[in-house]
Amino acid sequence: MRAVDIIIKKRSGLELSREEIEFMVNGFTKGEIENYQMSAFTMAVYFRGMTDNEATILTKAMLNSGDVLDLSKIEGVKVDKHSTGGVGDKTSLVVAPIVASLGIKFAKMSGRGLGHTGGTLDKLESIPGYNISISEEQFIKQVNEIGVALVGQTADLAPADKKLYALRDVTGTVESIPLIASSIMSKKLASGSDVICLDVKVGSGAFMKNEEQATRLANLMVQIGKNCGKKMTAVLTNMDEPLGFAVGNSLEVIEAINTLNGKGPKDFTELCLTISSYLVLNSGYAKSLEEARALCIRQIENKEGLNTLAKLIHAQGGDESYIYDVDKFPKAKYELEVKIRKAGHVSRIDALAIGNAAMYLGAGRAKLTDKIDHSVGIVLKKKVGDIVKENDTIATIYSNKENNDLEIKTILDAYSVSNDAIEPKLIIKVIS
Amino acid sequence: MRAVDIIIKKRSGLELSREEIEFMVNGFTKGEIENYQMSAFTMAVYFRGMTDNEATILTKAMLNSGDVLDLSKIEGVKVDKHSTGGVGDKTSLVVAPIVASLGIKFAKMSGRGLGHTGGTLDKLESIPGYNISISEEQFIKQVNEIGVALVGQTADLAPADKKLYALRDVTGTVESIPLIASSIMSKKLASGSDVICLDVKVGSGAFMKNEEQATRLANLMVQIGKNCGKKMTAVLTNMDEPLGFAVGNSLEVIEAINTLNGKGPKDFTELCLTISSYLVLNSGYAKSLEEARALCIRQIENKEGLNTLAKLIHAQGGDESYIYDVDKFPKAKYELEVKIRKAGHVSRIDALAIGNAAMYLGAGRAKLTDKIDHSVGIVLKKKVGDIVKENDTIATIYSNKENNDLEIKTILDAYSVSNDAIEPKLIIKVIS
Repeated sequence: MRAVDIIIKKRSGLELSREEIEFMVNGFTKGEIENYQMSAFTMAVYFRGMTDNEATILTKAMLNSGDVLDLSKIEGVKVDKHSTGGVGDKTSLVVAPIVASLGIKFAKMSGRGLGHTGGTLDKLESIPGYNISISEEQFIKQVNEIGVALVGQTADLAPADKKLYALRDVTGTVESIPLIASSIMSKKLASGSDVICLDVKVGSGAFMKNEEQATRLANLMVQIGKNCGKKMTAVLTNMDEPLGFAVGNSLEVIEAINTLNGKGPKDFTELCLTISSYLVLNSGYAKSLEEARALCIRQIENKEGLNTLAKLIHAQGGDESYIYDVDKFPKAKYELEVKIRKAGHVSRIDALAIGNAAMYLGAGRAKLTDKIDHSVGIVLKKKVGDIVKENDTIATIYSNKENNDLEIKTILDAYSVSNDAIEPKLIIKVIS
Repeated sequence: MRAVDIIIKKRSGLELSREEIEFMVNGFTKGEIENYQMSAFTMAVYFRGMTDNEATILTKAMLNSGDVLDLSKIEGVKVDKHSTGGVGDKTSLVVAPIVASLGIKFAKMSGRGLGHTGGTLDKLESIPGYNISISEEQFIKQVNEIGVALVGQTADLAPADKKLYALRDVTGTVESIPLIASSIMSKKLASGSDVICLDVKVGSGAFMKNEEQATRLANLMVQIGKNCGKKMTAVLTNMDEPLGFAVGNSLEVIEAINTLNGKGPKDFTELCLTISSYLVLNSGYAKSLEEARALCIRQIENKEGLNTLAKLIHAQGGDESYIYDVDKFPKAKYELEVKIRKAGHVSRIDALAIGNAAMYLGAGRAKLTDKIDHSVGIVLKKKVGDIVKENDTIATIYSNKENNDLEIKTILDAYSVSNDAIEPKLIIKVIS
């Protein structure tokens, strides 16, 4: 078998065999197939696409390139969730404790943030002492004991994907639906859960710019997961504005705590309940979606979700008293109100721009080695659908630097205002 | 400027600017742009194509990556021809002396053969003493004195193309019309001639498998040449059978000599006269194509073409007595007749297969370092349109090895026979 023949076959629009796809992935991982052949191959995939079967084989080949977590020592149903990356997305901090408080096992490896999107690990590290690096043994013990763990990636999951993504990033093939799907799913499947809920973002702040693309991606990921024996749901959600009000690490943790106290933003609460409900339903803990949803609401009302978050923080070395007293979180030095200059109905808040403004403040990383300031960020005061008058405060900036002109301008530019009333719609559809 | 942005722009189907194309080519030549970015770029070009303007800019950028021959010290009109690579193609050996014998300057750098196609240099080296490596100074002096030189590539012509072609070869982007056109034209333009005739082969033995593709390639190359101030013609010719009868180095030289003696194969003679006529016409040595053709026929009849070939051989150190006595060429040890097992009209002779059979005999190279046996090869006895009876000899194998079963089988398989009469058509169309 020769790489060039496989490239030409894909280039010509023919379906590749299992052997051919495995030859490419394994050869590439071992360094036997050159970067320049793999980049030509991925460009051919960009143009020709992949069948569901090809994408499943590609996913499995990347999955098998590294460690696969063995969660068999964890009793019961193991669930996981994944977001394709949004701004203000602190969903895991709410979904994990709600679901775990019901007896379902939530054993999640998360990532750090880069660019305009934040990472769950960075958010958790706002809490003093929280340790994201625990051994696999401890990880399994903790999930068995309290039902939940949120840790960094310790095992070498899907190294083929890591190497391939780095190459795609510099050769213009990031935006390929089968390549995105297999990249996400190879890591999710390597994490070993039985039930997976995917949150596929749509809009300017997301990878998928429109509903049609997002639907294709969601369908393909659900199909790949099912082909690998997983119970799958994908929720398509709008990223035409940030999720909730808060963008920035401790600000988002506070918002997650508020949500577990039943006082969260409407859109964010709805998303957390939807994802939690599907995980509960697919785990067999409820007979219907309605029943699952009622269970999740109950775990907010009776504070069991909140208490489970506190247990998680405690188990991983963090100070859980912060969960019950959010005033403990350090405050940023400066608090600035951003006032809008036009009146009307807020029709759109460019999530990418808000994410970038938070990054400029120090809440995110422009490059991997940047340090994060956990106290800074933005809290929106007006969301899509709200009516604004001239000089209304639309957002508060929490900053540790004196000059925030760039951030103010970026936030102002992010807001679009229309004369017509707008009905915001967060959840576009659910695919399962 | 970043390579990845240029890749994405081309991938998205947008036209690239001069600056962007030059950035890619110059960066790649200097090693500043990685192979893996260039291969993704060429794959994007494969799918998106290039405008005539983009292809012209690409050609010029590759042309300017190395030496450009300065033929200004050669008096008069300088002409050149190029074939996209056929089997049994010894056209330069006939066209060059005919044209030069009329006072037009034919200063050509040729290549060696690889795979199923032979190279002009290998053919010329059948003649004892012929030296393909002469200095640029000698080259110019010789063309001024006798009107013709056929040499190897001494100058570093279009190194960007050389590097790019090697990359395309292993990444599945050889078959891209703008990339083929710019590759050929960058080298042709670097050779410094004023008038160029291209022979674009069509068929199973050629790069271009059908007339539509070949027409697009020819049109693009003619346009690029004209954009660079050259007088251009492209002849589309059939490669559904080898050109002439002889395939193999000394066998082809003998056939070229026969042709200059007015005793060449009908198809091959016609092609030589067509290409020669366009070169003569575009050089201003005739007022019409008919007049140009009459001049070329005269140079065969009065042996001036033959005598010019002898002068060329002599000037480059070869024994020109071979030109007047072809029995001097060393004979292969074995001569075998290949007899057909079916009767009918020969409808097709797979040129690729015949080229491969000659390569197996030692007439060509499977890899660049292979040595060539100049005496071996194949002489066809039946061509497309001929009627064959069972057991008719269709070809003679000239071999220096005892067992030639593979070659016999390959030749037999190459012949297709039909019940219907076939009218072979060599020249499909002329584009200028």
